[in-house]
Amino acid sequence: MNVVVGQSGGPTSVINASLAGVYAAAVAAGAEKVYGMRNGISGLLKERLVVLNDLLKSEREIELLKHTPACYLGSCRYKLKSVEKCEEEYEKIFSVLEKYSIDCFFYIGGNDSMDTVAKLSAYAAKIGSGIRFVGVPKTIDNDLTETDHTPGYGSAAKFVATTIKELVRDCSIYEAEALTVVEIMGRNAGWLTAAAALAKGEDCEGADMIFLPEVPFSMDGFVEKVATLLKRKKALVVAVSEGVKLADGRYVCELASADQKEDVFGHKQLTGTALFLANEMAHRLSIKTRAIELSTLQRCAAHLSSATDVEEAYEVGMGAVKAALAGRTGVAAIFTRTSNVPYRCGVSIAEIDKIANMEKTVPLSWIHEDGTGLTEEYIKYAMPLIQGEMSPIYENGLPCHLVLK
Amino acid sequence: MNVVVGQSGGPTSVINASLAGVYAAAVAAGAEKVYGMRNGISGLLKERLVVLNDLLKSEREIELLKHTPACYLGSCRYKLKSVEKCEEEYEKIFSVLEKYSIDCFFYIGGNDSMDTVAKLSAYAAKIGSGIRFVGVPKTIDNDLTETDHTPGYGSAAKFVATTIKELVRDCSIYEAEALTVVEIMGRNAGWLTAAAALAKGEDCEGADMIFLPEVPFSMDGFVEKVATLLKRKKALVVAVSEGVKLADGRYVCELASADQKEDVFGHKQLTGTALFLANEMAHRLSIKTRAIELSTLQRCAAHLSSATDVEEAYEVGMGAVKAALAGRTGVAAIFTRTSNVPYRCGVSIAEIDKIANMEKTVPLSWIHEDGTGLTEEYIKYAMPLIQGEMSPIYENGLPCHLVLK
Repeated sequence: MNVVVGQSGGPTSVINASLAGVYAAAVAAGAEKVYGMRNGISGLLKERLVVLNDLLKSEREIELLKHTPACYLGSCRYKLKSVEKCEEEYEKIFSVLEKYSIDCFFYIGGNDSMDTVAKLSAYAAKIGSGIRFVGVPKTIDNDLTETDHTPGYGSAAKFVATTIKELVRDCSIYEAEALTVVEIMGRNAGWLTAAAALAKGEDCEGADMIFLPEVPFSMDGFVEKVATLLKRKKALVVAVSEGVKLADGRYVCELASADQKEDVFGHKQLTGTALFLANEMAHRLSIKTRAIELSTLQRCAAHLSSATDVEEAYEVGMGAVKAALAGRTGVAAIFTRTSNVPYRCGVSIAEIDKIANMEKTVPLSWIHEDGTGLTEEYIKYAMPLIQGEMSPIYENGLPCHLVLK
Repeated sequence: MNVVVGQSGGPTSVINASLAGVYAAAVAAGAEKVYGMRNGISGLLKERLVVLNDLLKSEREIELLKHTPACYLGSCRYKLKSVEKCEEEYEKIFSVLEKYSIDCFFYIGGNDSMDTVAKLSAYAAKIGSGIRFVGVPKTIDNDLTETDHTPGYGSAAKFVATTIKELVRDCSIYEAEALTVVEIMGRNAGWLTAAAALAKGEDCEGADMIFLPEVPFSMDGFVEKVATLLKRKKALVVAVSEGVKLADGRYVCELASADQKEDVFGHKQLTGTALFLANEMAHRLSIKTRAIELSTLQRCAAHLSSATDVEEAYEVGMGAVKAALAGRTGVAAIFTRTSNVPYRCGVSIAEIDKIANMEKTVPLSWIHEDGTGLTEEYIKYAMPLIQGEMSPIYENGLPCHLVLK
């Protein structure tokens, strides 16, 4: 048996742990060769494959892989067209898969990548190919349907909550009035921004307000809320999702300038929400403000990974292999939670069509009525996901990574 | 014997470790009361003192203090005027010190704060007061004279180098040409930006270019260098100091104001150095670019402190107390290094006048001739400072802090 595995879409701190899980389970199941696609399906189309058995020879390499952020194999943002529009692409992919005698195809990615799994498994059925296609979820956005949460979310949430705790301390040292606006990733789903709520505890007053894209944002309401809070507290820390939108559907960052760029998927490039809000508040309230964008640090700060997340990412990779070995195709491995306290969550299987291109947002019932914070329900849901520390393997004072050269 | 200690200026991850060192040494020397000034000298002027003996009762509290970023006692940016201009301020300060029977005054801060120590010790001599004034250095900028390095620099450097390593991985995953510009703190001295050079190693290609304020920056030269690098490498990561300046002395970020956009409310958007450079390169070279400002995270990411830095920050606090007990005043505790390999560095004493208001920049001989990187001399100097990990005390998945409420 030979298998091939690829990574696609934006990176997380634990996507390589899922790769390690797929690799370990495939080897344990007796796979002769475990191939890796360089740069996902786009590399497969060019036959750019590596033999993971040659690259991951020792326990140390597997351990390092679990500690390495981003995509060991490289990634792509390549969306397959429909079979009707571009059948030659499908033919090319299957000719490569047959050339290397591939039995199982694993794709680690978000909802766009699950679309690739859905299309390829459907095409396999159409042409009567026995190759099995299984998705392995990953995204810091936590916006995949069916699964309780996504691998990558716990580590990103731990980074966000830790950073908010540290920023709250940093912002509290002066006596002057000040507003710090922290911008957190999340285009349509506010899951990661919600993690700012985890910072609150006995030793931290937490973020003063948290704004998610799920609730329409009002500029005037924001000014009023900041002004009201400043009456009883000098240094405010506010978390905003990059994707917060006005009631008319425009992104808040669009107010900053009209010429926003679009990416290859036609998504608008969202930058500058925090900068815009900080500048506005400085003008309107004559206070000192600062904008902080957590930017890509939140998806690659592997030095602060959640041990729970790393372990689960590994397990979901193994679960995908188990599903393929059981003959499943056109599915994804997912998480099903049975209990919050104690936290109990296992890997199960879902049809890929229920996940591909779908998006799960934060339930409105988990957001405070005034739209500025999260309820206890969210805390109970998210807290187990950030538990445990996956201390890096340090060498010469810095975390070590495994790099494919 | 009673002592008072304060913190002043911008925070670091280890300024509280110095506070712990002062406290521990004072208590060990038999101090009856160790007072803390709330918000530095500005709080002392208002008699806002706390009794640290009541606040730091257990070993755990001292340990937590060493792990807590920013200033436990609060900080200020208050510069004393000259005695000639404002003698009543000095009188007020000394009346408070006498009211509380203070024998020794310790001030943890950067070069502005050392000015406070210099002025107060000079005034004490003038009025014949026996109170001793000793400075404890701190700054992530590493720009203090006399001392080999400053407490706070090692932890900030470790954060910068770790983050650059993680960002290099994150940026390497796609096949498209892309430029990531990372903005690092340091207005006139490039020490912290230089730490990006520490990321390079067997498992990391490091930052592709590093620009410090010590060397004049050329926009055309930058475009040319990026274009040249792109011929052999697709994803570039460039580190720039927030304070890079053109040959005519203007800050690079000042160039942004020429084509600054106005938001819908007619306010000008303030743009940073990295954002300006990233936008420029996107236009000039038609490549994908991203600007990342490490912002205040680099000074408060205590979860990634250098154990060497924390230990030294504690020792320099103790050293300051020892100096005061030996009758010294108008001095600061500093570091003197005797060897790089093995790293040997001890606490000694310097006259405050040689430190106050002075600034130490990166030696030009440590910067590559083309101004885009650091020499081996710098690496040998900085590497020992980021060694060792000071793992946080975690509770419920997040680092714990000690907070003065």
